Amino acid sequence: MALDKEQIAARLRQFQQTICEAIEKEDGKATFQLDQWQRPGGGGGDTRVIENGDVIEKGGVNFSAVYGELPTKISGALGLNANNFFATGVSIVMHPSNPHVPIIHMNVRYFEMDEDQWWFGGGIDLTPHYVDEKQCEWFHNQLVAACVKHDPNYYSRFAEWANDYFYIKHRGESRGVSGIFFDRLNSKSEGKSKEELFDFLLEVGESFAPTYTRLMNENKGKDFGDLEKAWQMHRRSRYVEFNLVYDKGTKFGLDTDGRIDSILMSLPPETGWKYTQFWPKGGAEMKTEEILKTRFVPKSSK
Amino acid sequence: MALDKEQIAARLRQFQQTICEAIEKEDGKATFQLDQWQRPGGGGGDTRVIENGDVIEKGGVNFSAVYGELPTKISGALGLNANNFFATGVSIVMHPSNPHVPIIHMNVRYFEMDEDQWWFGGGIDLTPHYVDEKQCEWFHNQLVAACVKHDPNYYSRFAEWANDYFYIKHRGESRGVSGIFFDRLNSKSEGKSKEELFDFLLEVGESFAPTYTRLMNENKGKDFGDLEKAWQMHRRSRYVEFNLVYDKGTKFGLDTDGRIDSILMSLPPETGWKYTQFWPKGGAEMKTEEILKTRFVPKSSK
Repeated sequence: MALDKEQIAARLRQFQQTICEAIEKEDGKATFQLDQWQRPGGGGGDTRVIENGDVIEKGGVNFSAVYGELPTKISGALGLNANNFFATGVSIVMHPSNPHVPIIHMNVRYFEMDEDQWWFGGGIDLTPHYVDEKQCEWFHNQLVAACVKHDPNYYSRFAEWANDYFYIKHRGESRGVSGIFFDRLNSKSEGKSKEELFDFLLEVGESFAPTYTRLMNENKGKDFGDLEKAWQMHRRSRYVEFNLVYDKGTKFGLDTDGRIDSILMSLPPETGWKYTQFWPKGGAEMKTEEILKTRFVPKSSK
Repeated sequence: MALDKEQIAARLRQFQQTICEAIEKEDGKATFQLDQWQRPGGGGGDTRVIENGDVIEKGGVNFSAVYGELPTKISGALGLNANNFFATGVSIVMHPSNPHVPIIHMNVRYFEMDEDQWWFGGGIDLTPHYVDEKQCEWFHNQLVAACVKHDPNYYSRFAEWANDYFYIKHRGESRGVSGIFFDRLNSKSEGKSKEELFDFLLEVGESFAPTYTRLMNENKGKDFGDLEKAWQMHRRSRYVEFNLVYDKGTKFGLDTDGRIDSILMSLPPETGWKYTQFWPKGGAEMKTEEILKTRFVPKSSK
């Protein structure tokens, strides 16, 4: 029997559990709370949020499976005539309290319409408040390793896609050091079976926990003071700008009447837009800004 | 000689000065700093920002006059074929430090294209962290007084327009207690001369300083503690959501390559999106939320 949407949703739901356990273990203090919600038009989700941990100040690992009539606003944007949709996925954003621990985002999703059209999408990208180039190389290498098992071109294709996607146009800077991003992958576009493509999606999902818990572990003990916290608040404000102005997942959630507090769990617990800010000349803050303005280019892509 | 764009811009620029002086006087501590900027495609502006005052934590009174080729994205959205535009205006947002002092926004603007099409737009609206109904009534009465001198229907028409505009759809709540909003007013739509319409715009602009300085004065001495500050951070996060997701002025600025720090001066110096928050049952916070969810209806509109 062919892989169906219920099987995909069930497997994605398992991720949520595994990932929450790994993060709780590395955090060492806080645990995820569960909020289950139902979507009036069909489906719902399990939102799991961690707050005020030793490492994670606020983070969410959200599973959802929603279905129903497709709002015309979305079918129009997607250039489709379909009336019914089914969408399932896991979305993660982690905002750590220590500015030396990077923000991370992961999403894996499956979308189906009128049963004859379907695709996978997703990605992982890293947003360090301070770019540690060695760690960012290592991060990209984990993505290379996940991609290469499935297709020799996936990493370079999807890294380029991420570079284009995670870009804050009005600031002329990248959201972070990028990662991989892909959307609308199906048999037609990839010449692979649904099962093969789902295997790739699972590989991406499975790479998340070991990759991020290592970055938590390596950075959570580092010292920081007022300067680093102020810089973190500033970088987080850029994250808000990206998510509210450009992010398609956020727009999709708002347009399909998803649960608003689950969609916007990606936004940081504390941030701000100060007008006058000075960062030390030649300091780590300016170095990170320079990298984000010119783009971080991992060796893996050279 | 007919009123031309240079005369309009010059008069709007005078507002900036008058308003800054009035706010500085009521604040009593901080002064506005000036940042002049030029737009690569034509024109520029004077951004004046006040920070860390006794009353105003962050506020901007921005003048701009920009011109050049109209980006197709905008001409399309406006349903126009014009190639050249001229836009001038004054935009104000004030974020006070005391949660009992309301946030305010004002904008007065003039837009012209290919010299044969022109219109005025603008408005004033109030966003109290805590709705004091008596003060909000008074605020609306000031707008009634400004409108009624020019047209018997302006207040009710423009108050309704503001109700529709300053609405955070995904939250199902108003940004604040509304005010007036109008756009694309010209001789054709209003049956008034350009001079008459500009007189109305000036009246709106002139009502700003006496109205807001009185609200600053009445509330700046009120006591507040951690609860009120937490609620203020929360209300400010909704302000960010409105401005980045819905506000047309912000979109126009981003789409026309305006100076980004001037456009986003509207965003609060400190805010955040906490997931778990509890507000006292039956407290002033919940009362305000209820009013924003059902809409504040001033007696003036009944």
